[in-house]
Amino acid sequence: MLIENFLNPPSVVVYGASTDPTKMGGRVLANLLSGGYGGKVHVIHPKADVVQGLPAHSSAADLAERPAHAIICVPGPAVEAAMQDAIAGGVTHAQILSAGFAEMGEEGRAAQSRLLRMAQEAGVRFSGPNALGCMSAVNSFTASFSGFLMAARPPVGDIAIITQSGAVGTHVLGRAVDMGLGISHAMFTGNEGDLEAADFIEALAGDPATRVICCALETCSDGPKLKRALLAAAQADKPVFILKIGVSEIGAEAAMSHTGRMAGNDAAYSALFEACGTLRATSLDEMLELALVASVAGRPANNRLAVMSISGGVGIMAADAAAAVGVDVAPLPDATLHRIAEIYPLVIGRNPLDTTANAGSALPKVGQMLDEICALDQYGSVYMYFSHVGRTQARLELLIGMVAALKAKYPGLTVILATFIDEANRQALHRAGIANIIDPDRAIAAIGGAARSRMLQAQARAATGGSRPALPSGPFTGGDEVAARAYLEQAGLRGPAETLCTSADQAVAAAARIGFPVVAKIVSQDLPHKTEIGGVVLDIRDADAMRAAYDGIMQRARAAAPEARIAGVSVIEMVRDGAEVIIGGSQDPVFGPMVMVGLGGTAAELFHDVALAPAPVTAARAREMILGTRSAALLTGWRGGPALDLDALGQALAAVSHLVADPAFGISEIDINPFRLRQQGGLVLDALIVPRHPAPADPKETAS
Amino acid sequence: MLIENFLNPPSVVVYGASTDPTKMGGRVLANLLSGGYGGKVHVIHPKADVVQGLPAHSSAADLAERPAHAIICVPGPAVEAAMQDAIAGGVTHAQILSAGFAEMGEEGRAAQSRLLRMAQEAGVRFSGPNALGCMSAVNSFTASFSGFLMAARPPVGDIAIITQSGAVGTHVLGRAVDMGLGISHAMFTGNEGDLEAADFIEALAGDPATRVICCALETCSDGPKLKRALLAAAQADKPVFILKIGVSEIGAEAAMSHTGRMAGNDAAYSALFEACGTLRATSLDEMLELALVASVAGRPANNRLAVMSISGGVGIMAADAAAAVGVDVAPLPDATLHRIAEIYPLVIGRNPLDTTANAGSALPKVGQMLDEICALDQYGSVYMYFSHVGRTQARLELLIGMVAALKAKYPGLTVILATFIDEANRQALHRAGIANIIDPDRAIAAIGGAARSRMLQAQARAATGGSRPALPSGPFTGGDEVAARAYLEQAGLRGPAETLCTSADQAVAAAARIGFPVVAKIVSQDLPHKTEIGGVVLDIRDADAMRAAYDGIMQRARAAAPEARIAGVSVIEMVRDGAEVIIGGSQDPVFGPMVMVGLGGTAAELFHDVALAPAPVTAARAREMILGTRSAALLTGWRGGPALDLDALGQALAAVSHLVADPAFGISEIDINPFRLRQQGGLVLDALIVPRHPAPADPKETAS
Repeated sequence: MLIENFLNPPSVVVYGASTDPTKMGGRVLANLLSGGYGGKVHVIHPKADVVQGLPAHSSAADLAERPAHAIICVPGPAVEAAMQDAIAGGVTHAQILSAGFAEMGEEGRAAQSRLLRMAQEAGVRFSGPNALGCMSAVNSFTASFSGFLMAARPPVGDIAIITQSGAVGTHVLGRAVDMGLGISHAMFTGNEGDLEAADFIEALAGDPATRVICCALETCSDGPKLKRALLAAAQADKPVFILKIGVSEIGAEAAMSHTGRMAGNDAAYSALFEACGTLRATSLDEMLELALVASVAGRPANNRLAVMSISGGVGIMAADAAAAVGVDVAPLPDATLHRIAEIYPLVIGRNPLDTTANAGSALPKVGQMLDEICALDQYGSVYMYFSHVGRTQARLELLIGMVAALKAKYPGLTVILATFIDEANRQALHRAGIANIIDPDRAIAAIGGAARSRMLQAQARAATGGSRPALPSGPFTGGDEVAARAYLEQAGLRGPAETLCTSADQAVAAAARIGFPVVAKIVSQDLPHKTEIGGVVLDIRDADAMRAAYDGIMQRARAAAPEARIAGVSVIEMVRDGAEVIIGGSQDPVFGPMVMVGLGGTAAELFHDVALAPAPVTAARAREMILGTRSAALLTGWRGGPALDLDALGQALAAVSHLVADPAFGISEIDINPFRLRQQGGLVLDALIVPRHPAPADPKETAS
Repeated sequence: MLIENFLNPPSVVVYGASTDPTKMGGRVLANLLSGGYGGKVHVIHPKADVVQGLPAHSSAADLAERPAHAIICVPGPAVEAAMQDAIAGGVTHAQILSAGFAEMGEEGRAAQSRLLRMAQEAGVRFSGPNALGCMSAVNSFTASFSGFLMAARPPVGDIAIITQSGAVGTHVLGRAVDMGLGISHAMFTGNEGDLEAADFIEALAGDPATRVICCALETCSDGPKLKRALLAAAQADKPVFILKIGVSEIGAEAAMSHTGRMAGNDAAYSALFEACGTLRATSLDEMLELALVASVAGRPANNRLAVMSISGGVGIMAADAAAAVGVDVAPLPDATLHRIAEIYPLVIGRNPLDTTANAGSALPKVGQMLDEICALDQYGSVYMYFSHVGRTQARLELLIGMVAALKAKYPGLTVILATFIDEANRQALHRAGIANIIDPDRAIAAIGGAARSRMLQAQARAATGGSRPALPSGPFTGGDEVAARAYLEQAGLRGPAETLCTSADQAVAAAARIGFPVVAKIVSQDLPHKTEIGGVVLDIRDADAMRAAYDGIMQRARAAAPEARIAGVSVIEMVRDGAEVIIGGSQDPVFGPMVMVGLGGTAAELFHDVALAPAPVTAARAREMILGTRSAALLTGWRGGPALDLDALGQALAAVSHLVADPAFGISEIDINPFRLRQQGGLVLDALIVPRHPAPADPKETAS
């Protein structure tokens, strides 16, 4: 399995190893040998007999055993030969650290493609090129030229780190050391000529040594693969925290599909992450603070937070921060407050609880109060602010003992303690399963993010499957708005009642059947501009008006185009109630099928207030998407107005999501604009469907 | 002056000093004596002769000299007596650290008011009670019972810190020490029974030892005073960074005025801060990172940032972060790029510049490249990311030397260096005027915030004064919509053309003069519900329709209320073009007069997309306010539509701001809803004015 093959191979062969440990190849070998790696290390060298104490060979073929894994750090031009030699020698996996490939333009891209073909023909998988390599703290295996990894070895733990950029990777590891985080493995994937970050995320989902996955992602060329990997992590209930790098560039790119244009390509990443239960971090430090909480304290079981602070001010700050990230600082029940008041009369508030600074010298009582709170089993997390209490060793030991006992008694509880302490004491806290984050806002953001991560992954697990709505039997073969609406009707999205009439009497009868007011519209494939020639009449209120409208339309049409083929006049139900919604479905070049929903009008566009998701989605999930937009307030009974049929909208969105998700329908893009959502059901007022293989441009050709 | 009186008094007298340095009073005296304070310290003690080596007296009256400043830390109930004794002894200023006052409810509030009266009668100013005291690093003066201040003395510098909560204060100081910041003074104001944070901000604006002011503000009872203080800091060009605590509570409070309701009371703080050039921080750490940049590196002269990174990934992250906070990472001119390529061919990009990791071993060339960039004199700030380069002392010294030389050559430039270094080296960087922030997002946020702070303060200095528009001669004496519109007309806000007619012929003539289409409306103080009785006719398109409308209205009105007094029928210009805007002015209970502007319709309310400012505002500033809302896009030529008259809207808003700002107009609240903004000018379609002393409720009483 990928992790074993890359982060704990039985044997490795190094190309480009140097006797000089300051050189790239020298550092790679030195890192390997100094790390305590248990496997066998072979060295290939054109001239030297011995490199850093190891016998050197001229080719992998000369080795007594078939090495499992090649580490290639020769100069770029020599990489292909080294790869060939490694393949001949029987390796199954390789890491190419050398630069000089796709990052160097056309020629480099060609060389990188040759490497991929070579590997694919031999059934070899590789990481890189232009990569920093990897480091497994768990296996004491370091295949990298990183001077930092040579100097500082991060503590062993259960947090895995994946980055594409090597410098970002060492930055993250450096900060992880600063924060006292424990690392399982770190993988730096560089150009991703073969294996991508997504491949390693998927592998880590099955890695027993890893419980938390952090990834700094610059590019993604295969959205569906990334989706599979993130869903695998969700299935394994292992949090994934991703920092997306390159947002501003991506944002600047003109997105191709209508959906993209409305929501921005970066929103597609957010949509994918949310659908997969992946939490998106906004900075490297935030990513690691989320990992700290998830790894050390565990993700909160629910979104309710109890705050106890020896500072009223910081307690309020915590409440502010909780409100900002949607964490519920729910007030304590009166019974508990009474018991707490008996234990410690000085306490102020219902939650946050302000113990006043005196609590610093009454820690046992603080412990009793916390026990009362935790015994409720209502709060997923507890945030304790103890300022400078941690600076005096005697008190700190009391504090740690008290909190550790609490955590031992309520192992499922997420406990964050904010106090100024040194590294040794912080490690003691971590061992007790308690995270320490001194800035209140960052602490609460990490608590809220960790809780959200757990909730999102549960949601992602639940969202898989779901019944598929009734859908058309065949693919969409192209055509105009009428054809599009007819096709959508097969998917349960009906339009307004409509009857094609060829006489005024028919029109009057139809209007009576449909119910006034109605709209009358000329139907002719030869008259594209119906309104301009007076071919449309709105708001027809009675039989006489209907008759007049029919005759008037026919006269104006004949006058405008004497030899136009006229099928008749369509009498259409006139809809004025409800709200206009836009439903879109499209194929994103990176992420594949996506659906979008938003209110019509300027709000959605001006405020980018649309919901986006990878297709397909269940009707239930679609409903949640809609409720997630701020404009939803306009659909659920705005200012005492009627609540509209969100179930119908959810079903419509789900149907569209299946139509774009399943290639069998042959659809590239669907735009329903507007969809008129009403108190009961909704209607497609106008729709466009773009087939994957467009039908002939001019319907006449097929007609004749 | 306040700073001297509180942070460097010639002599102090301590009440409640104890021989036991672990007790509150003992710590106060110990802090005072161990700090190196140069003034004279007197001790008042009921029994002891000597306290911590000082002779104790039973009353300040017994002292040989009149002490300038009293520090009171006796138990709450004994405070009033101590205060009396201090006043009798001749002190002019006091700090009351003791608790047991307003924070303890009704009785405590009463005791606190007695203290205030006592002080006012004696012309004494005091800080506290329930306060942690203060600490002046510059003057080695510490009047506080803080154990932290006793243990760790922050380095001397030019950053002043003001908090109300003592625990928040020591947290901030603790973090300042962690970040290696230099402190001038710290003031912890507690209950603010007399002096408030605003008083000390105003004083610090004139304090030569202070260049940067940080404040964690929980409550503010006097908005106008705070405004004066913040404007004084802006005048002195001293940045103020405020963390507002209690946002969520305040947000939850139902705000009183219409403006408040739409924008939320917290928005009034933001509006006040922005108008005064004060930057609002979102966390304590962010506040201190802003202070770090302003104090050590100086605020950027403009919003353009040059990024040089040895990591392409971090370079992109920096660009992302810049985009997020509105900092301009403008591309370098080609000529400069060519020279840079000659110096160092490996460099990638136009800005951010990616030097690749190799630059770590080519620092002199990095220096040359940076010199090329700085020589352009186009970028206010430079962000340099050097990852782990700082970990090896030899290279670090090269790096620091190179950056220090750059800073020496371009002293006006703001330079942020991100590299992993230890405290000693960080201090060396600080001494060279270079700030070190390792997290790229936080570094860029601090750069952007510091630049914005400088820009906002310049804006605030410029916005003072401004010509006052033509305004009514007298106060508004009350009345209905008609009276309100007539009054606003005197302020240059005109409504649609309107003529009161008493015959159909007059109406036809008036309509012809005004121009069709017009609206006709019955005018009668006895008919409040004009629409319901058919007293309003819209969209009158010609003379016949006008005549019919006049007669119809009169008939329906007479039929509905035979003895109603009818003044006639008003013929009104019908306006359909342009956009509906809401203009509001009101008296905020805390901040005084405020004005609000936002688009009509749901967008403003649903997305809280309104602009708020303390009144008065200049027309120019009002125009900027409007352009600051996202809805402004709908006024400036949305989808190729016409651009509307923002100058007219700015003038209208400025006029309203003067009407609510100047008590002479006797106005409590103005709501113009809607104001119809057109391509030329705008019209008040409906308006309400609430006088400060409401006129009789029923206009009839005045009429009869």
